Amino acid sequence: MAKEITARNEDYSQWYLDIVKKADMADNSAVRGCMVIKPYGFALWENMRDQLDRMFKDTGHVNAYFPLFIPKSFLSKEAEHVEGFAKECAVVTHHRLMNDPNGKGVIVDPSAKLEEELIVRPTSETIIWNTYRDWISSYRDLPLLINQWANVVRWELRTRMFLRTAEFLWQEGHTAHATQQEAIDETLLMLDVYAKFAEEYMAMPVIKGVKTPNERFAGAEETYCIEALMQDGKALQAGTSHFLGQNFAKAFDVKFLNENNVEEFVWATSWGVSTRLIGALIMTHSDDDGLVLPPRIAPIQVVIVPVPKPAPELDEAARKIMQALKAKGITVKYDTDMRKRPGFKFADYEMRGVPVRLALGMRDLEQQQIEVARRDTKEKTFQPIEGIENYVEQLLEDIQRNLFQRAADYRTEHTTRVDTFDEFKQVLEEKGGFISAHWDGATETELKIKELTKATIRCIPLDAAEEEGRCVLTGNPSRRRVLFAMAY
Amino acid sequence: MAKEITARNEDYSQWYLDIVKKADMADNSAVRGCMVIKPYGFALWENMRDQLDRMFKDTGHVNAYFPLFIPKSFLSKEAEHVEGFAKECAVVTHHRLMNDPNGKGVIVDPSAKLEEELIVRPTSETIIWNTYRDWISSYRDLPLLINQWANVVRWELRTRMFLRTAEFLWQEGHTAHATQQEAIDETLLMLDVYAKFAEEYMAMPVIKGVKTPNERFAGAEETYCIEALMQDGKALQAGTSHFLGQNFAKAFDVKFLNENNVEEFVWATSWGVSTRLIGALIMTHSDDDGLVLPPRIAPIQVVIVPVPKPAPELDEAARKIMQALKAKGITVKYDTDMRKRPGFKFADYEMRGVPVRLALGMRDLEQQQIEVARRDTKEKTFQPIEGIENYVEQLLEDIQRNLFQRAADYRTEHTTRVDTFDEFKQVLEEKGGFISAHWDGATETELKIKELTKATIRCIPLDAAEEEGRCVLTGNPSRRRVLFAMAY
Repeated sequence: MAKEITARNEDYSQWYLDIVKKADMADNSAVRGCMVIKPYGFALWENMRDQLDRMFKDTGHVNAYFPLFIPKSFLSKEAEHVEGFAKECAVVTHHRLMNDPNGKGVIVDPSAKLEEELIVRPTSETIIWNTYRDWISSYRDLPLLINQWANVVRWELRTRMFLRTAEFLWQEGHTAHATQQEAIDETLLMLDVYAKFAEEYMAMPVIKGVKTPNERFAGAEETYCIEALMQDGKALQAGTSHFLGQNFAKAFDVKFLNENNVEEFVWATSWGVSTRLIGALIMTHSDDDGLVLPPRIAPIQVVIVPVPKPAPELDEAARKIMQALKAKGITVKYDTDMRKRPGFKFADYEMRGVPVRLALGMRDLEQQQIEVARRDTKEKTFQPIEGIENYVEQLLEDIQRNLFQRAADYRTEHTTRVDTFDEFKQVLEEKGGFISAHWDGATETELKIKELTKATIRCIPLDAAEEEGRCVLTGNPSRRRVLFAMAY
Repeated sequence: MAKEITARNEDYSQWYLDIVKKADMADNSAVRGCMVIKPYGFALWENMRDQLDRMFKDTGHVNAYFPLFIPKSFLSKEAEHVEGFAKECAVVTHHRLMNDPNGKGVIVDPSAKLEEELIVRPTSETIIWNTYRDWISSYRDLPLLINQWANVVRWELRTRMFLRTAEFLWQEGHTAHATQQEAIDETLLMLDVYAKFAEEYMAMPVIKGVKTPNERFAGAEETYCIEALMQDGKALQAGTSHFLGQNFAKAFDVKFLNENNVEEFVWATSWGVSTRLIGALIMTHSDDDGLVLPPRIAPIQVVIVPVPKPAPELDEAARKIMQALKAKGITVKYDTDMRKRPGFKFADYEMRGVPVRLALGMRDLEQQQIEVARRDTKEKTFQPIEGIENYVEQLLEDIQRNLFQRAADYRTEHTTRVDTFDEFKQVLEEKGGFISAHWDGATETELKIKELTKATIRCIPLDAAEEEGRCVLTGNPSRRRVLFAMAY
């Protein structure tokens, strides 16, 4: 009855792809590496986007929109940026097609070559800072707290839906400040917003930390991140917030007159999360029966399925329940589609991760009760119809809490402190998860560990305690532990 | 004090650009023909988008997201589509940059040429119908009622901010149906949604009509449109809804098994509105002092300006008023910025088209009154502070109605019935506006009139009465009048 999906312990990658496809989240497209986000997947993204957008606006940010294209020369203006940033990107070279004189199709018109090639934005620091030059002249113009929701393109070689696609949707905040401290504060504020969103809405516990110099965003002075742990023991970077110093201001000559009438370069931050979060969400909560969604961002929070089929009394009772739930702000779907059997629907809503399913049959109605199934534990109970809206409201909160707790417990169990490199390798191989270990701070050491084990330093946790120790590889002194893991 | 803008009767085009710039709506960018939508302009677009999105969802539509890129060969699959559609588009030919071996910049890596060029979507019928082939197999899969909010690119030669830009933001609905009638009903339903949005939210009266074959969307069987009249007497196509027949289904081989188990091609519609609506909005209501916005979509509905500057009592009173207005769901800004004088602020909010301005000074406070200025008529009155929220709520409704009425009156005055070609030319030259005239239905005649006068047939109004007449150019018989105008 259920659409079959591969079990996690059988083939985790295939399990993931099965869920993406069978829960109607996304589909492959005719364009290499680009996906189609299907309506159900997009409804989830809309809920995530809208909540993030509210949080951005509550912290004083406004939205704007900058061009899709970046002149090629812009990319080389900030030296670190061009050096470190991946050069795999979509390049526009022509601006016209013409009918093929030898056939029926169209060809690129060779006479319509652009003077300067345009790059489809892989990120927008360059075009935005080129614009900020015109917008900023005095301290009165600062801070600029601007966010953009946009599509970006990075020509990734190996793609996987949501996790790594050539085109993806994201938001990118780009702020401009009069002082270094204000920019650092902003960087950390947005890191907190991301962490709060991940934990309170996605029910996904995250570690806030700072990246090593080697893992920094190209052009940043400091990159902060939130890191989550997936069910296969691999880490996933779920969001980044960069303190950019004055690098982009210098590259694009963005200066302001301060209160003392002295000219200074502007301080910058940028921060972003993307549709990758949907991949993280799937891998945090879902199980072998399909998607599991936290109630706070689920497109449908409650589904009501009539059993065996709607009869007038049943229909009336179901609509009353629907109204009572809606009055509490709960998103309900009452499924009256007669072309599908209840059993098929049960499996389908399970696959789609709907947090609560209510099933109502004539016998239940006679007894004034209704079957309540929760998706997270798959527990089923009968509850009185009277006051069911209060029960369900409470249940949704329980599910939200339970999902977070389950993921937090998993992470606790899969975070291991090690003090020797043998232990390091053993834990990585046998258990996975985060490895908390001392590191001597050298990029060389970091790269060597990566070479030997494929594990990377996910971050230096912001709350890492000062602790004397010895680097797990070199034995050199270290003052705090960092988190290693295999990562997406 | 006010940032100067050109008067309409002096230079209408410059007036428009001045408003776009000085009301902080948009800015030019470093990329030819692409604009930056500034935060204030984008907030307006967000309000318009959110309202349209609610209306789409209320009529059963869902959102999804399809790739930015379209394989070049897709464009030639639907013969009419490739023939009629403008070939000016952005063509991606390479997927990698490399460091220039002769210098410091980056160049396109010649070894990274794509096998097939990708076109940045100018519209998405082709990629979407290529996807629908996989999604549709049975009548149970229909209808598909999908919308997409996206950026699109058309390499326009002459661009003007909002009205015609190389990249613009829009929504494109793409629906699939089992029957011709259902698809036609959908086409007309969405036309009604557009008309309702234009009239009730943008306060912009529109004519619903059908395009002549010559003005049809490439690949459509019938194109419906809403046409608005701007203050310079030129018409503007504000939205289109296309009945696509089975053309795209045939081009992309999209069939379904009907209830009788017989295979049929799917019926299609597509419909869209874009950031062009912002241009239309500006040119419908604004005046020589700046933008004028209808309350229902204004980013800020009411601004409270303290005069001469906030004092504790003033501040307390202003905050109470703000709370009372917010409690009514009104968007209020209380401007406490001490770096700008009230007079500057008055002019600035006028420029930005904020519908209602409240100014509160100490003397007003003593008399328990407040100055209320409405942007549409520029009328100022004093009103009691007590119950001001009710007064303002009513006033916002009045302004919304008044703006619509004013525009409707203008349109009535500028719609002229003519029966001879001399009259036609005279009205076009001296008065502008819509010209209601008989036309013999021949494309040749339509093109001849365009050649002679530059006027085009905007639409055949859906409510055009049957009326025997003679074509204004050829004298051939005609059964109804059509609307001609100069157009954007």
